[in-house]
Amino acid sequence: MKQKVVLAYSGGLDTSFCCIYLTQDLGMEVHSVIVNTGGFSDEELKGVEERAYKMGVTSHHVVDETENFYNTCVKYLTFGNVLKNNTYPLSVSAERVSQATAIANYAKEIGAEFVAHGSTGAGNDQVRFDMIFNILIPDVKILTPIRDLKLSREEEITYLKEHGVDMNFEKAKYSINKGIWGTSVGGKETLTSNLGLPEDAWPTPVTESAARNLTLEFKQGELFAIDGTGYDHPTKAIQALQAITQPYGIGRDIHVGDTIIGIKGRVGFEAAAPIVIIKSHHTLEKHVLTKWQLSWKDQLASFYGNWLHEGQFHDPIMRDIEAFLNSTQAKVSGKVFVELNPYRFQVTGIESDHDLMSNKFGSYGEMNNAWTGEDVKGFSKIFGNQVMIYHKVNSAE
Amino acid sequence: MKQKVVLAYSGGLDTSFCCIYLTQDLGMEVHSVIVNTGGFSDEELKGVEERAYKMGVTSHHVVDETENFYNTCVKYLTFGNVLKNNTYPLSVSAERVSQATAIANYAKEIGAEFVAHGSTGAGNDQVRFDMIFNILIPDVKILTPIRDLKLSREEEITYLKEHGVDMNFEKAKYSINKGIWGTSVGGKETLTSNLGLPEDAWPTPVTESAARNLTLEFKQGELFAIDGTGYDHPTKAIQALQAITQPYGIGRDIHVGDTIIGIKGRVGFEAAAPIVIIKSHHTLEKHVLTKWQLSWKDQLASFYGNWLHEGQFHDPIMRDIEAFLNSTQAKVSGKVFVELNPYRFQVTGIESDHDLMSNKFGSYGEMNNAWTGEDVKGFSKIFGNQVMIYHKVNSAE
Amino acid sequence: MKQKVVLAYSGGLDTSFCCIYLTQDLGMEVHSVIVNTGGFSDEELKGVEERAYKMGVTSHHVVDETENFYNTCVKYLTFGNVLKNNTYPLSVSAERVSQATAIANYAKEIGAEFVAHGSTGAGNDQVRFDMIFNILIPDVKILTPIRDLKLSREEEITYLKEHGVDMNFEKAKYSINKGIWGTSVGGKETLTSNLGLPEDAWPTPVTESAARNLTLEFKQGELFAIDGTGYDHPTKAIQALQAITQPYGIGRDIHVGDTIIGIKGRVGFEAAAPIVIIKSHHTLEKHVLTKWQLSWKDQLASFYGNWLHEGQFHDPIMRDIEAFLNSTQAKVSGKVFVELNPYRFQVTGIESDHDLMSNKFGSYGEMNNAWTGEDVKGFSKIFGNQVMIYHKVNSAE
Amino acid sequence: MKQKVVLAYSGGLDTSFCCIYLTQDLGMEVHSVIVNTGGFSDEELKGVEERAYKMGVTSHHVVDETENFYNTCVKYLTFGNVLKNNTYPLSVSAERVSQATAIANYAKEIGAEFVAHGSTGAGNDQVRFDMIFNILIPDVKILTPIRDLKLSREEEITYLKEHGVDMNFEKAKYSINKGIWGTSVGGKETLTSNLGLPEDAWPTPVTESAARNLTLEFKQGELFAIDGTGYDHPTKAIQALQAITQPYGIGRDIHVGDTIIGIKGRVGFEAAAPIVIIKSHHTLEKHVLTKWQLSWKDQLASFYGNWLHEGQFHDPIMRDIEAFLNSTQAKVSGKVFVELNPYRFQVTGIESDHDLMSNKFGSYGEMNNAWTGEDVKGFSKIFGNQVMIYHKVNSAE
Repeated sequence: MKQKVVLAYSGGLDTSFCCIYLTQDLGMEVHSVIVNTGGFSDEELKGVEERAYKMGVTSHHVVDETENFYNTCVKYLTFGNVLKNNTYPLSVSAERVSQATAIANYAKEIGAEFVAHGSTGAGNDQVRFDMIFNILIPDVKILTPIRDLKLSREEEITYLKEHGVDMNFEKAKYSINKGIWGTSVGGKETLTSNLGLPEDAWPTPVTESAARNLTLEFKQGELFAIDGTGYDHPTKAIQALQAITQPYGIGRDIHVGDTIIGIKGRVGFEAAAPIVIIKSHHTLEKHVLTKWQLSWKDQLASFYGNWLHEGQFHDPIMRDIEAFLNSTQAKVSGKVFVELNPYRFQVTGIESDHDLMSNKFGSYGEMNNAWTGEDVKGFSKIFGNQVMIYHKVNSAE
Repeated sequence: MKQKVVLAYSGGLDTSFCCIYLTQDLGMEVHSVIVNTGGFSDEELKGVEERAYKMGVTSHHVVDETENFYNTCVKYLTFGNVLKNNTYPLSVSAERVSQATAIANYAKEIGAEFVAHGSTGAGNDQVRFDMIFNILIPDVKILTPIRDLKLSREEEITYLKEHGVDMNFEKAKYSINKGIWGTSVGGKETLTSNLGLPEDAWPTPVTESAARNLTLEFKQGELFAIDGTGYDHPTKAIQALQAITQPYGIGRDIHVGDTIIGIKGRVGFEAAAPIVIIKSHHTLEKHVLTKWQLSWKDQLASFYGNWLHEGQFHDPIMRDIEAFLNSTQAKVSGKVFVELNPYRFQVTGIESDHDLMSNKFGSYGEMNNAWTGEDVKGFSKIFGNQVMIYHKVNSAE
Repeated sequence: MKQKVVLAYSGGLDTSFCCIYLTQDLGMEVHSVIVNTGGFSDEELKGVEERAYKMGVTSHHVVDETENFYNTCVKYLTFGNVLKNNTYPLSVSAERVSQATAIANYAKEIGAEFVAHGSTGAGNDQVRFDMIFNILIPDVKILTPIRDLKLSREEEITYLKEHGVDMNFEKAKYSINKGIWGTSVGGKETLTSNLGLPEDAWPTPVTESAARNLTLEFKQGELFAIDGTGYDHPTKAIQALQAITQPYGIGRDIHVGDTIIGIKGRVGFEAAAPIVIIKSHHTLEKHVLTKWQLSWKDQLASFYGNWLHEGQFHDPIMRDIEAFLNSTQAKVSGKVFVELNPYRFQVTGIESDHDLMSNKFGSYGEMNNAWTGEDVKGFSKIFGNQVMIYHKVNSAE
Repeated sequence: MKQKVVLAYSGGLDTSFCCIYLTQDLGMEVHSVIVNTGGFSDEELKGVEERAYKMGVTSHHVVDETENFYNTCVKYLTFGNVLKNNTYPLSVSAERVSQATAIANYAKEIGAEFVAHGSTGAGNDQVRFDMIFNILIPDVKILTPIRDLKLSREEEITYLKEHGVDMNFEKAKYSINKGIWGTSVGGKETLTSNLGLPEDAWPTPVTESAARNLTLEFKQGELFAIDGTGYDHPTKAIQALQAITQPYGIGRDIHVGDTIIGIKGRVGFEAAAPIVIIKSHHTLEKHVLTKWQLSWKDQLASFYGNWLHEGQFHDPIMRDIEAFLNSTQAKVSGKVFVELNPYRFQVTGIESDHDLMSNKFGSYGEMNNAWTGEDVKGFSKIFGNQVMIYHKVNSAE
């Protein structure tokens, strides 16, 4: 009887190689699976399925994780205003974790003895896949033919041609990874430290030129309406916002950061909706949260983002931080006003029942009735007391 | 004999009132002082001096703190990439602390028994002045006529007119505070939560329309050259960069934050050079510092910025954090490439002898010779070990 | 009609003075209230009540906050293993916050226009009371006769005698504050930096001399059984443990710390049960939580303790941290073994279904089956990768 | 020509096996080295040397790292009051890092092509050695015969006997590791979660029974005198204090913590001097440092200790934190009074010119002249302002 292997299949060169290699060279029964976290159209998914069967898989399965990915992960990235190194919304990193988890669950469900992924030995993804499989399905063996055989692109193509596979072997100039929380772009420039990406590298061309005002509505931290139109689920609102904003060329940048394996990595991304949402959400929070809520959110969210990036989503500390983040969002409801322009946007203001900048309690720079200048004098004295004492005690030296 | 008072004098309505009030009503000998932290031209300073003598001061003194302000404060804001609430370079906050310190030292120097400032009872500055005076010159009494008398603008004008003062009493539409680390803009919109500033509120009109590339050079964290031109002191480089970048309308934003007295405050600012420097410096750091250097710098710098904002510059913890920040900058040297466009800019890349993204050690996504896929397999297993055990131990439930 | 004032009444000199002063000098209708957070016996409470009526109060009310104090505060101090400055379980600090909150609620309930407390102008308690009243009942005016009149102890006694009050005016050698989470001890030694407390200053004499073993049982972070005996509510278990352990002289120490008003304060305390519980609970956590759970708990709990100490219990960040702490306790269940000896105790071990130190997954220093030496080699290589690159890149200098 | 290998040699079973294996089976030229970090007597070192030559090494070298270990590491553990998991002074962890570094430098010095250590595949030390060698001498190959051959103790003994080695093959009941910063104790109890160590497991018997008072003197954070006797170097003071305190049975405990490889580990230790020094130093700091110095020291030192434990001493973040810690110690000078008793000690007080608890500035609970009750009223109002506003804004719900 053939051994059952679940293969993470994207339809690309590496995973197609794996497919043939596992079925023909290793004689396994391959069950291919693709996890959609919001980046694939139905048409693309259908194309992948057709290709999978052509490659000889026993079954092909599509897992639609879009809403689940949002509910268990993207939601908290929004709550935490997570931008890795102050730049990157973790588009691909977060997605991979969700995909690896879904694949592990699928392998368990169908009782596979093996699970295979097409990662090379050079990136973050291999660690995320290996680690999450080790954690969730420790008894299922992991196969990584591309990493183990150390094949070059050309060797893979030759192998596939010899095995009668006919597909588009041309290498794309830029490697693109699309998901609901942003699209990454890698190419020859991102392998250097000094070059930016040319205009034609960006997947979405800039087609909008007129300024436009938007009103985003948040309820307990989640985007639920744009310009008065509500959405069933935040993923729908994100996709609608993405359709509006990406043609402005907003949210394009290059992220430089530490990979899990210790080297520095550089990647371009376009993520108009995530960037607009995070900046809007954060501005709303600045009005409704207290100083220490803002401060601790920053610290915990920064860790949350990094630990997620490193594939450690299943560490229970992540659940604890999510509990914290959930609690902070109780009053993060209201409208945020945004102005779009080509290549840039501006949050112009907010409106919220929970706004602590209420005129009722004194405006900055204006006098009020809740306290007096005398109160502030006393405050200043006591607030500086320890440092005053420190300087007096140590001044004799 | 008359009592000696040092008055922080800016030449505006509030401090002019103080001047007359202290000399004529209280019969004091007023020594006015103005501290330049890089925002005043020689002409402006001369105008202030003339006005001071007209108001009857016994002496007027100008302290040029520009370089000292940079050396003791702005330098560390750069090292720490400090943007309060991820937005504001602390332009005015930092300046006030430097000014209050210089005034305290001046009062001590001339043996004044009193020190006076023109703050109202409604903002941050009163706390900064009160507290720093309490700390550095605890035996000198603090006078705050505007806060104590609770006068309205109109009452002040009437008083000044009655005392024969002739000056421009018209209220500016926007209150502007200019310094080397940015210019703040307050007006009727910033007293609301929902309105942005109109184009004509910004002090520097946008006059540049063509894209421009710049090369900034940093040495151990400090900007010292622009496009190959070196500067004697970083303050000169900042001013040169400001002259190039501000006419692009770069670095304009509205900051919403917590005041020292607990209310929320909102202020516009334009700070092209600070924002370009911070983003450039941070990008360079992402290439030359280790993961944990970046992480701890963020945490400590965030506290440093907040504590400075709250006027606590003289707490010895600030010196300790400066020692930390200094140490982190040893390798932060190299070039940063920036592209300017109207209302926006982009850091396109860096070049540094200390770049950890060196090709010699493996590029992200490419194989290399320093380690193997097997090494990463082992790493993934051990890196996920604890969470694997956690799930196994707790799975039986 | 007389004005209604709620007075925080303890039966001591200061609050007795307030009682007479408010009724007779100010002609107010005084409603005295005492909040029991676990430190008073029924007999003591009855004595206080009798005295209150003798002082002329219109009504006297006892609020039993013991369980509520535990549920809303002590529980989280346990979850967080909170020891201020690594020493003090925050016995009195936490209590005051609970008391001030209960008094504010009572004042609101009976529609008082004033609320009074007997704090002097020299300690932490005045800030806690003032601030919590300002926050919860901002429209109720606060009266603080002792602070405002700046009376000496002798003046108070004279006043009371003149008003016919007959009570024990002798000053206790040590001022003692007893609560469920520990008893504080202040005296002439604690006003110095260099003296310890003499044996007779400690409220509970050491009467036990034989070693004794205890088994504490925790369920989701809460103590519920001792040596197999379960308790209805954790407060009962704490009190039982206190009765066993305090006669050993355990948990005595002197805390030195920063007061809210910036000066340093020193206070003795005995808190056998809190210290034994915290150390036991922490040891159990070291076995069942992951590395980062332990690390973040430390950071958040340290802030939680300090912010509570400073009276800021009603900042919503405290609720957010409680949500975090609750989440971390899901697996903190099991037995902890403790050995008591005079003046010291030792946690000797734990037993838990959630123990991550399970033999099944490899003991420290022993080989196992889940990973190999090769895995660790790979791990070591990758784990040190960035620092290796850093040294190579920067070694040429 | 024979290949040159540097072998970390302790004289025990594992490294003796390595010695024979490398010389005889692999035909290498073995240069054994032992690094003394304060735990070995001259006699012990001489015994190890004799044994090394008997095993056939070409050269044997002793590196005395005691003072250097203190200067580069133990000093900072003191400054940071580092107790891992609030318990363990990192005795062995810190030592290993220092030893690995010294061995790497020695290998470089003599131009070795290989470096060998006797670690098994089951503990922390292998990671520390591997990683530090990879970082400092990446071109020198690492040999780990014990880990690679997976030999049992019995197999090693058989091999050694077959190769004519005559040494004491009896296994010690407890494995002891002695260094200047404490002695670790492992045995069958530490492999369980629930058992403590029996009295006879502790290397130093308790021979003192009378209470004794000590005065420790610190200068800028470093211990330099005990009871008035000064020492040339802090290592001498530590050793003198250890000789006084360890016979009291002080500083014994069991540490449970996370190993680098993700499993939980448990180890006993006795470390009287380190524990007394840390507690004394910390108490002194509580008197002379400001609130935020204490708070940030805790956070940074906790990371420093963990990262050191994980062998990451050569990450430049460690130098940055050391710069911070150095800066904090400027005023940490003075005397600390300690009372020793069998199995416990108590810090009774301090005396310092930098003591912020000076009576001149108001004692806790006593009135003073630097501020008034009115000042505190104002402070309380402003300090609680934001939370008051928060509750008002959100109370209508």
